[in-house]
Amino acid sequence: MLKLFYSAHTCSLATHIVLEEVGADYSTARIDFARNEQRSPGYLKVNPKGRVPALVTDRGVLTETPAMLVFVAQSFPAARLAPIDDPFAFAEMQAFNSYLCSTLHIAHAHRMRGPRWVDADDAASIAAMQRKVPQSVTACFELIERDMLKGPWVMGERYTICDPYLFTLAQWLEADGVDPARIPKVIDHRRRVGERAAVRKAIAEELA
Amino acid sequence: MLKLFYSAHTCSLATHIVLEEVGADYSTARIDFARNEQRSPGYLKVNPKGRVPALVTDRGVLTETPAMLVFVAQSFPAARLAPIDDPFAFAEMQAFNSYLCSTLHIAHAHRMRGPRWVDADDAASIAAMQRKVPQSVTACFELIERDMLKGPWVMGERYTICDPYLFTLAQWLEADGVDPARIPKVIDHRRRVGERAAVRKAIAEELA
Repeated sequence: MLKLFYSAHTCSLATHIVLEEVGADYSTARIDFARNEQRSPGYLKVNPKGRVPALVTDRGVLTETPAMLVFVAQSFPAARLAPIDDPFAFAEMQAFNSYLCSTLHIAHAHRMRGPRWVDADDAASIAAMQRKVPQSVTACFELIERDMLKGPWVMGERYTICDPYLFTLAQWLEADGVDPARIPKVIDHRRRVGERAAVRKAIAEELA
Repeated sequence: MLKLFYSAHTCSLATHIVLEEVGADYSTARIDFARNEQRSPGYLKVNPKGRVPALVTDRGVLTETPAMLVFVAQSFPAARLAPIDDPFAFAEMQAFNSYLCSTLHIAHAHRMRGPRWVDADDAASIAAMQRKVPQSVTACFELIERDMLKGPWVMGERYTICDPYLFTLAQWLEADGVDPARIPKVIDHRRRVGERAAVRKAIAEELA
């Protein structure tokens, strides 16, 4: 059975949603960032990176959201959440998810995780990073709005693993200082993903 | 035919190597960062992100190194550069590449690309980011050394798309202030990948 280590209000929600979407038999374990549980010796044995998400499988532990999303989609092909038989369409889907993890999520992370990239006691530089976040995150969402979100779903007519991932990162855009009026397609997409039963169930469990 | 847009000394080398490894019929186009060609109107039509690499295919343009590497591996299955029929092994491979793009490459990028995350005229914060790079990049390579590089290749006995990607990012570690003596497995891996004919050919073309 699969076991997802997650923390509320993080990108682990994307994998949580996809596990619900495919009807997987899985359990969850909550990691409390307020208590720094992601750095506890027990959790570091699960994931030496000290981050969420992590997915325990019969064959070992998987990490990194783009990899985990594809793993779930490939393990439950009947749910048709990824074009696994079409290398070009699969690559387009992967490129979208890679942009989310390596550009959008990184831009966002400069608001809360500045000490990854400057000394933790350098308050001025951490504040400088935070001031840039509205601009850098807006630029990412505007690129998604203009060039990447095909509509109605990210990849077009079919709902894929890209959709819950974009939905998850779009939870944070107002707090990042992005004006929702500039990205109406992204906002409409977020609303429609949020209406899905799998999404409601995953969120309800994380916030319970 | 495939066409790779690349720039020397960037992560596009990974895809260039893999195109050589599989024996693809492809051409290349150099983007000169010194002349800011990545922001030229012509290139922005190819890749609106204004970054390299980009791979033009018969069906459209692909971006993002992890997606492109898998696309080439899936398009040339005889080269056996990815475990495309084993979802767990495929996910482990993808997790490795995702870590490279979203953690290691990002840590490195704070040395040269600070204005992505603070104002371009904030010299003090840009310098603060640069001072952190030796520590943050070293932490990434030490994690790879200890927990991720199975040996002799990244994924174990078989050379995969992870190997040229790690090799590419490992080109920069001395300039990032990493002590090679702390990561002997990574350094040995870099040497062995560098001896491959495909790698020598891709590098020779980029530096010609």
